[in-house]
Amino acid sequence: MDKLLYGVAYYDEYMPYERLAEDIRMMKEAGINVVRIAESTWSTHEPQNGVFDFSSVDRVLDAMHDAGIHVIVGTPTYAVPTWMVKEHPEVLAETPRGPGKYGARQIMDITNPAYLFYAERIIRKLISRVAAHPAVIGYQTDNETKHYDTAGANVQLRFVKYMRDTYGDLDAINKRFGLDYWSNRINGWEDFPSVVGTINGSLGAEFAKFQRLLVNEFLAWQVSLVNEYKRLGQFVTQNFDFEWRGHSFGVQPSVDHFAASEPFDIAGVDIYHPSQDKLTGIEIAFGGDMTRSLKHSNYLVLETQAQAFPNWTPYPGQLRQLAFSHLASGANMVAYWHWHSIHNSIETYWKGLLSHDLGPNPVYNEAKTIGADFQRLSAELVNLRKTNKVAMLVSNEALTAMEWFKLPDGKLYNDVVRALYDELYKLNVEIDFISPSSADLDRYKLIIVPALYAAPDNCLQRLNEYVKRGGHVVYSFKSGFADETVKVRHSLQPGIIQEACGVTYNMFIAPDQVGLRGPIVAEGESPAVESWMELLTPGSAEVLAWYDHKQWGEYAAITRNRYGSGTATYIGCLPDAAIIRKVLAGAVREAGVWETAQELSFPIIIRSGINEAGKQIRYYFNYSGDQTEIRYPHGDGVELLSGIVVKAGDTVRLPAWGVAIIKA
Amino acid sequence: MDKLLYGVAYYDEYMPYERLAEDIRMMKEAGINVVRIAESTWSTHEPQNGVFDFSSVDRVLDAMHDAGIHVIVGTPTYAVPTWMVKEHPEVLAETPRGPGKYGARQIMDITNPAYLFYAERIIRKLISRVAAHPAVIGYQTDNETKHYDTAGANVQLRFVKYMRDTYGDLDAINKRFGLDYWSNRINGWEDFPSVVGTINGSLGAEFAKFQRLLVNEFLAWQVSLVNEYKRLGQFVTQNFDFEWRGHSFGVQPSVDHFAASEPFDIAGVDIYHPSQDKLTGIEIAFGGDMTRSLKHSNYLVLETQAQAFPNWTPYPGQLRQLAFSHLASGANMVAYWHWHSIHNSIETYWKGLLSHDLGPNPVYNEAKTIGADFQRLSAELVNLRKTNKVAMLVSNEALTAMEWFKLPDGKLYNDVVRALYDELYKLNVEIDFISPSSADLDRYKLIIVPALYAAPDNCLQRLNEYVKRGGHVVYSFKSGFADETVKVRHSLQPGIIQEACGVTYNMFIAPDQVGLRGPIVAEGESPAVESWMELLTPGSAEVLAWYDHKQWGEYAAITRNRYGSGTATYIGCLPDAAIIRKVLAGAVREAGVWETAQELSFPIIIRSGINEAGKQIRYYFNYSGDQTEIRYPHGDGVELLSGIVVKAGDTVRLPAWGVAIIKA
Amino acid sequence: MDKLLYGVAYYDEYMPYERLAEDIRMMKEAGINVVRIAESTWSTHEPQNGVFDFSSVDRVLDAMHDAGIHVIVGTPTYAVPTWMVKEHPEVLAETPRGPGKYGARQIMDITNPAYLFYAERIIRKLISRVAAHPAVIGYQTDNETKHYDTAGANVQLRFVKYMRDTYGDLDAINKRFGLDYWSNRINGWEDFPSVVGTINGSLGAEFAKFQRLLVNEFLAWQVSLVNEYKRLGQFVTQNFDFEWRGHSFGVQPSVDHFAASEPFDIAGVDIYHPSQDKLTGIEIAFGGDMTRSLKHSNYLVLETQAQAFPNWTPYPGQLRQLAFSHLASGANMVAYWHWHSIHNSIETYWKGLLSHDLGPNPVYNEAKTIGADFQRLSAELVNLRKTNKVAMLVSNEALTAMEWFKLPDGKLYNDVVRALYDELYKLNVEIDFISPSSADLDRYKLIIVPALYAAPDNCLQRLNEYVKRGGHVVYSFKSGFADETVKVRHSLQPGIIQEACGVTYNMFIAPDQVGLRGPIVAEGESPAVESWMELLTPGSAEVLAWYDHKQWGEYAAITRNRYGSGTATYIGCLPDAAIIRKVLAGAVREAGVWETAQELSFPIIIRSGINEAGKQIRYYFNYSGDQTEIRYPHGDGVELLSGIVVKAGDTVRLPAWGVAIIKA
Repeated sequence: MDKLLYGVAYYDEYMPYERLAEDIRMMKEAGINVVRIAESTWSTHEPQNGVFDFSSVDRVLDAMHDAGIHVIVGTPTYAVPTWMVKEHPEVLAETPRGPGKYGARQIMDITNPAYLFYAERIIRKLISRVAAHPAVIGYQTDNETKHYDTAGANVQLRFVKYMRDTYGDLDAINKRFGLDYWSNRINGWEDFPSVVGTINGSLGAEFAKFQRLLVNEFLAWQVSLVNEYKRLGQFVTQNFDFEWRGHSFGVQPSVDHFAASEPFDIAGVDIYHPSQDKLTGIEIAFGGDMTRSLKHSNYLVLETQAQAFPNWTPYPGQLRQLAFSHLASGANMVAYWHWHSIHNSIETYWKGLLSHDLGPNPVYNEAKTIGADFQRLSAELVNLRKTNKVAMLVSNEALTAMEWFKLPDGKLYNDVVRALYDELYKLNVEIDFISPSSADLDRYKLIIVPALYAAPDNCLQRLNEYVKRGGHVVYSFKSGFADETVKVRHSLQPGIIQEACGVTYNMFIAPDQVGLRGPIVAEGESPAVESWMELLTPGSAEVLAWYDHKQWGEYAAITRNRYGSGTATYIGCLPDAAIIRKVLAGAVREAGVWETAQELSFPIIIRSGINEAGKQIRYYFNYSGDQTEIRYPHGDGVELLSGIVVKAGDTVRLPAWGVAIIKA
Repeated sequence: MDKLLYGVAYYDEYMPYERLAEDIRMMKEAGINVVRIAESTWSTHEPQNGVFDFSSVDRVLDAMHDAGIHVIVGTPTYAVPTWMVKEHPEVLAETPRGPGKYGARQIMDITNPAYLFYAERIIRKLISRVAAHPAVIGYQTDNETKHYDTAGANVQLRFVKYMRDTYGDLDAINKRFGLDYWSNRINGWEDFPSVVGTINGSLGAEFAKFQRLLVNEFLAWQVSLVNEYKRLGQFVTQNFDFEWRGHSFGVQPSVDHFAASEPFDIAGVDIYHPSQDKLTGIEIAFGGDMTRSLKHSNYLVLETQAQAFPNWTPYPGQLRQLAFSHLASGANMVAYWHWHSIHNSIETYWKGLLSHDLGPNPVYNEAKTIGADFQRLSAELVNLRKTNKVAMLVSNEALTAMEWFKLPDGKLYNDVVRALYDELYKLNVEIDFISPSSADLDRYKLIIVPALYAAPDNCLQRLNEYVKRGGHVVYSFKSGFADETVKVRHSLQPGIIQEACGVTYNMFIAPDQVGLRGPIVAEGESPAVESWMELLTPGSAEVLAWYDHKQWGEYAAITRNRYGSGTATYIGCLPDAAIIRKVLAGAVREAGVWETAQELSFPIIIRSGINEAGKQIRYYFNYSGDQTEIRYPHGDGVELLSGIVVKAGDTVRLPAWGVAIIKA
Repeated sequence: MDKLLYGVAYYDEYMPYERLAEDIRMMKEAGINVVRIAESTWSTHEPQNGVFDFSSVDRVLDAMHDAGIHVIVGTPTYAVPTWMVKEHPEVLAETPRGPGKYGARQIMDITNPAYLFYAERIIRKLISRVAAHPAVIGYQTDNETKHYDTAGANVQLRFVKYMRDTYGDLDAINKRFGLDYWSNRINGWEDFPSVVGTINGSLGAEFAKFQRLLVNEFLAWQVSLVNEYKRLGQFVTQNFDFEWRGHSFGVQPSVDHFAASEPFDIAGVDIYHPSQDKLTGIEIAFGGDMTRSLKHSNYLVLETQAQAFPNWTPYPGQLRQLAFSHLASGANMVAYWHWHSIHNSIETYWKGLLSHDLGPNPVYNEAKTIGADFQRLSAELVNLRKTNKVAMLVSNEALTAMEWFKLPDGKLYNDVVRALYDELYKLNVEIDFISPSSADLDRYKLIIVPALYAAPDNCLQRLNEYVKRGGHVVYSFKSGFADETVKVRHSLQPGIIQEACGVTYNMFIAPDQVGLRGPIVAEGESPAVESWMELLTPGSAEVLAWYDHKQWGEYAAITRNRYGSGTATYIGCLPDAAIIRKVLAGAVREAGVWETAQELSFPIIIRSGINEAGKQIRYYFNYSGDQTEIRYPHGDGVELLSGIVVKAGDTVRLPAWGVAIIKA
């Protein structure tokens, strides 16, 4: 990428009246230099089976090109036309909740051949038509692709074959998956029951893994089609997204981002987050760290919020803050979903940069300052490189396993991930994400492993060896508990990693008024344990905290063990945030990666990297509604937004929801 | 109507033993002079296809006539017999929740020809048989008729034709309904998908409107059948009901009362409301005002509660209070559902005037005093006429639109309607209801318009002109937001009415700890805003309140604008009740309709009208459990219940849950 | 039974590696002398249709026998194999929620002939094979059998025939069940609609009764099969269970335990209960009292918890306490579900005596002390006999009726049962349970009758006569309300029992801030009434409490009436626990059964009986986490666990969660 991209999703097709020229005029005024089009409007581009009408694409491409605005063209396959469903109702995914109904997007069986036939045809028609257009800089395949829980008879049949290919014979499957239980044993391939009703979490989790493979296959197939047409310099990306809890929250359950991102030239993502008084920047950092880690490179924020929901409308300054927050995590593009607020249908209240009146408004006006700054500072800020020394290992398999085996209070995998991630973020410890099969462990000094519930032996052994070689690991409870088929290990827990952790347990409790005591607990502090506690018996490990409870007080709660040249910290419960932060801070120091940035903490957030010129760029954010001042802790530099020179120890004022960018 | 009717629903068919003579004896003792029969018992009257048995009807008619009790006969079509469903399972409505199951009432497809065939046959059989009977004074068609969400393939087909008839061509539909969105575009009539799964609120709302048309059609058809037989002096009515939230709450979502009531001779209604310490009279007034407005005339309360639920059993005095409350709104009949408490099935705990023991009880004993007073005061109290100067404009279309687009905290249209209605009621401002297409605006000095989310241009223009001519309007937030196809207007908001309101906005927020400040806020008051706030920029309007919030304090919340000879008040948020009452009181004064009654307020409620002799009748209610005294504020008169003469300024004692009726 | 049995459910088939010898070694160490096998693993024993493999049964039998451990063999019919469902999908029960899906256990239509054919075949194969094995002491048929809400067309057809057989003709049915209501009348047997959608509680309750008959039939059939093979001295039992509210809670809705237990040699049960700080012993006593009452004899606890859920893991001492608690209610066997914690599937977190690591742990270690004590004290503690003078009459019919007609706050039958049972338990009043058709009333001095909502006349008349003869009854509200077809009685309430109770009512209220006053209320006490209140008018009855409320204060709440030689107490509302306990204590005194044990109360619980040597055995439990001392209130004896002699008036120390067993 040679410059920062500032963009919007643009839907000429949705406009209530002819607006193209006026929209482009307003975009230019706001510094918008890229639009994303076409991914949502298959029924407009193919109004009848085999009848194509790309006029809205053509005219937007021409007009954008005339205005010097780039275009990313999406394959319009995530929402199917009415005629297709009338002709072939079977394109709708059958899910555990029953057959599909037409209406929403993302309701197809992504393995259905009728759907694939039509999808291929329109992809080829559209991409071949636009590839040569000078406005087009890249492509997005589909949108927020998932498997939509497709689980009909055809999918089940493929799953059975997958099981045979993967595990060989039924005796092995019965054993590994524990199918003797409740008479679930399968003694002939023909008898394999639909997994839709299964109560066997191992089988259910395997099916979920299989469904994620369908997503990989589908996306790779789309990329291969687009690649046939794309010109030199054009890219293919995908708009990944995250577990949704009213906003982007954590690891995506339905897609293995690491695997699915492989065929793409560049990773893309959408990130939505609470705003107003609830804006913290955490989701921006989380999503950015994840997406940057997929291809170890910069990424595109293909969608994020402008005004969005009535409870998200940004306070003055927040739109700027979030734009620079994305850059600070390594984004090369920040694009809003969407340019204008839609006048009909379900997303009427998911507002764009423009309100329904399509005129200027305070948020749009703030965007103009961002566009100008992006343009002015592009060379300094584009292609930020990071070499983080801390990583977090996340796992779709662990996530799925914990959907089957929730914590007693209903908490899930991503609750644990976020409990740890959030404290690292607040400590200004920047991280990468890695997958359980990562071969890159030694790139990091410290690896954080939340709730690695299900993992193959070799992953855990690799982590043991990493520690032995001098690496540092922080595990949360539940790590190492089950193997990759979600079969609980029949050794003492935490199974294989007890070697590095120097701790064992075979009992666990839903805590009820349990506290902590021990070295990590400060005088006067009375930390609470919630959700889960393992009754740890330390072997070689040093105890950082014991449980504080009449009955369970003899057991350890948090331990650290020296193993080989490294350490393994084991957090056997879910303590409160303050304790988590202390444990993580200790591990950061232990790993020798404590830096100046850690002297400050949330709401002051520091994110940094090296720019193309090899200079250190540091962003200082004030994630609060109160103006504040910091004593500038780094080397002499220049604040890029103001152009003011800053020296170490200077007082830097950060307005409410403000940012300073200092090149040192 | 020549006298007050005091009645019960009577089910001879449900009686556990022969009771008719005893029931009539007890009814006479209670002053009951009308019973409603036959609407629930098709399976008794037609035990097999084409086999009729009206013996229970005949004997009740004869016995009632002998006793001088009138009878209203219902067409028994809202609950279908078992044989019909066995023979023709297709009579059950298919809804978005799937095919119907036999058991409950109101589960039919009211467009199904088998159902209609049988319904017509029994209506003709029954009505032709009873029409000449001297006991029969009128007929009720069906009961609480709605469309029961019928949405099967046949209904869908009719909807498609309705769309073509209404909107002409698909291009127009695609544009108006925004169907390009998410590839929902329809490019051939054959492709029109079932709306059951739609995510397009415009289309969904149109289907709801179409379903309401089916109700109009069905009821008009029943009336036309009954009209073939009814004798001179007999009436046909319908038992309308309201949005149900555990009791009658607001505008009925499934029926357009204004349109559906047209073919009837007289409007009927059922009204159920909280009781005991929660009795306020609001639902009685609301339901009465609505039903009186349908035909600008007196109405029948075909059902209201006697003992009803275990949490509604009236306190001593309350049954009297509610009976006179109905009269005070213009009812000419008050009838209980039902005479006796049922010994089997789902409404066992919805108790009647008699308990399950079928003997006297305290509530029945109180009814005896009501019956006597009704009889004694009939000439004074029947046919009360009102000429209200204030109206509230309510809209099924706005209601449906807000079901698709709920307020962020889940509030719906009727929450806004009631927030405004309740304060008018408590201020003793009596109102009529009008529909969006009303041609009668000039009948009123002040029109209250809650959340008119979806409305055609001409409705809003008519309101503008009404103000210009000297009318006064109070709008709540959301008014004018979308057109009649629930397409958000692409002008600045509030769209067309900004002309009269002198205010604009293009941003709105889900308020979080937002207050109000400004002229309407008294010293020491700190009113809270909930649910919704629009960031108003006043043009010519005077600001009654600004938001009190660090970020949104520059925007107006409530405004009033002089436009032509009138004023338009715009409430851009949902403030607390005290502020709403102040805004409404101000508008009442502004409109010049402030009266003596407004000097008192809830729990003292005053309702009034002119009787047949042209005298002013005023009801004074004490809706509280504490005896109170008022200084009689009106002209010299006589208290009708006691016969005592009252002079202006006299002290009038109102017992707990008491009423005085003064003719002046 | 000649000795105490201490057992576990054992699943050799689930073991992750060969463990049999090691498991048996550990069992022996823990004093385990019985295992239950085979009930869950049909698919292992019959891997294909007609192919049998009982090798895991054989080897376990042999190995157990070698070790001197007895075996109870279960018929493996409660969970069906995959091949059966593939071949005959119709074996899955169709329920009101739709057709079944394979996966869980207990999803069959227990009337389906394909299922019954295969079930019979494997029962005969298995039982004929093992009957002669010396390890086998008995059999369990199926497991926690219920009807699984089977309600498909075949079941409906049988129900119609059952209705004809039971009630003769449709006119009678229409009348008794009130089917004229809402046009539900059935005028031809062919028209009988599926009850799945019924809104008629009488019909719905009758169907539930019919479904319970299916369970009786199914179990009797299984017993008859097993009886063909069982040897002299072997027993057949069933594992009954209770209404489940996260643990065993109350009367089982789906099974009539009294009727279903008839064909069995000995009653068996599973009992699960809260633990840790929530352990009270109530569910152990409740389940034990019920199961002991079924055959007026000792019983087997076929399943209870070892570690179980993360919130149930027992505190030190609690496993011992619960084991002796079972014995104290008359159990001759205490068996854990299950030996080991399962490594796959849905019950992974329902832990056994062993954790997933299959090694010793604190709970297992505590079990070793229990096993040793059971062995040592077996002769003293086995076959404890009780002759209780107090009984509680419980009714499936009343329970079902209250599912149709819940209390206004959602409370159900078992809430009332437990409100009364719990206070008796805490008062140390031991009881039996009896059914509405019990002919044994005179065996008891006092009968407690909670919420006998639906009962036939003769049951109520029998209770009247019992009182007249000198018996004492305590009724709660709702008793006598409806007949056995859930038709509300049309007399004054409480119907037939008003004769004995000397009280009437015909109104009832959902209480809102209602208290009590009167003789039973102590100075300074302000008891609250919740859920329900009947407005009682005392006739001959003495009033123990009046309602304390502005409007309802004239009505009685709790009364006691002398009738003949006995008394009938009527509790017309749900008071708080303290008032309930006072009413019950008064009734106990009145009935002349007040004993020394009542001088102590919860958390000190005393349970007693006569052992085989005719000696009085008394258990003294401390159900609290605090050590306590009691003054020993009974005659001189010896504490069996310690061997220490105890004299009346001695101080006996009870540790936290401790027990003393004194033979006097």
